[in-house]
Amino acid sequence: MSCVATFSLFPLERPDQGSFAPYVARTIEIVRESGLPHELGAMGTVLEGEFDEIMATIKRCHDDMRKGCGRVYLNLTVDSRSGGAGRMRDKVESVGELLK
Amino acid sequence: MSCVATFSLFPLERPDQGSFAPYVARTIEIVRESGLPHELGAMGTVLEGEFDEIMATIKRCHDDMRKGCGRVYLNLTVDSRSGGAGRMRDKVESVGELLK
Amino acid sequence: MSCVATFSLFPLERPDQGSFAPYVARTIEIVRESGLPHELGAMGTVLEGEFDEIMATIKRCHDDMRKGCGRVYLNLTVDSRSGGAGRMRDKVESVGELLK
Amino acid sequence: MSCVATFSLFPLERPDQGSFAPYVARTIEIVRESGLPHELGAMGTVLEGEFDEIMATIKRCHDDMRKGCGRVYLNLTVDSRSGGAGRMRDKVESVGELLK
Repeated sequence: MSCVATFSLFPLERPDQGSFAPYVARTIEIVRESGLPHELGAMGTVLEGEFDEIMATIKRCHDDMRKGCGRVYLNLTVDSRSGGAGRMRDKVESVGELLK
Repeated sequence: MSCVATFSLFPLERPDQGSFAPYVARTIEIVRESGLPHELGAMGTVLEGEFDEIMATIKRCHDDMRKGCGRVYLNLTVDSRSGGAGRMRDKVESVGELLK
Repeated sequence: MSCVATFSLFPLERPDQGSFAPYVARTIEIVRESGLPHELGAMGTVLEGEFDEIMATIKRCHDDMRKGCGRVYLNLTVDSRSGGAGRMRDKVESVGELLK
Repeated sequence: MSCVATFSLFPLERPDQGSFAPYVARTIEIVRESGLPHELGAMGTVLEGEFDEIMATIKRCHDDMRKGCGRVYLNLTVDSRSGGAGRMRDKVESVGELLK
């Protein structure tokens, strides 16, 4: 697993006008089903995996949200490199070490 | 064609230390081969198409850049909605009308 | 002038439910008043200037939109480096040269 | 405090070629000095505060990194709305409630 990504996906047109939380919860359910390591944050969801796994997961989230919403916005950032799994945690820990 | 996207893709680790221009040029070549409407800008490349077409094109750009570079950064934003082709142009024109 | 930036600013909660175009047009008006070189695109507005000039301009756009909208989303990317003015154009041209 | 933001700031040109971790650690130090609630993540740092407080903090991070690096890249997203403090935590918890 070599990519760490963060994405934010939300409706710009939708049948309701309430909180985004149910939409984010549905997205997290789909990410959970992918089996990829992930973490929900206040501004996006971080996940780790092969580039293709990440893109396939985000596609599922997108397609699912578009079923119910006329317009959807996706913001995605990927840090892609060679290397084993665990970068999602390692990236934070390597900075934490320096801050001690 | 229902999605308009913008993306920026550049190396964070690479064999040279010069300008990013050759990397961007190679990306644009791949986008051209996709046949999707696109436009090169100072901070990213805008393209229009179905969600899957856009994602497949960006994957090709990513995979190509990763062949030569140890680490690559992708920043992607997608505005996804129903509707016919031409939104890439229409979005700008509809604002331009209001500014006349 | 050493920074080239692109930003997208739009309401997530607003009194109307129509097109985003009037909101973008108002943003462009504020950017025009700044006197900074800029270009409206399908997915954001590119502008060039000192870091502080760009941030001050975006603050004015943000504050203006927040007056009428309960919730606003800002997506900003800045490429900051030393150098003279004209990078907004030069960045595109240097890639264009390679594509001829 | 009404804004929740996430930002990623890293050098594109720099005197060394090692890990980004020391650069991120320095950024976190500056964010800590701001006194704003914040959280370091694998793909960016989330912080909460008034729009002006967030922008002033990011400016300090940017200016500090530019002292040592010829070129710097900033990616910033802000979710700006009225309301009291604690949204950084509330946003995550409101989704977590739905996932139980």
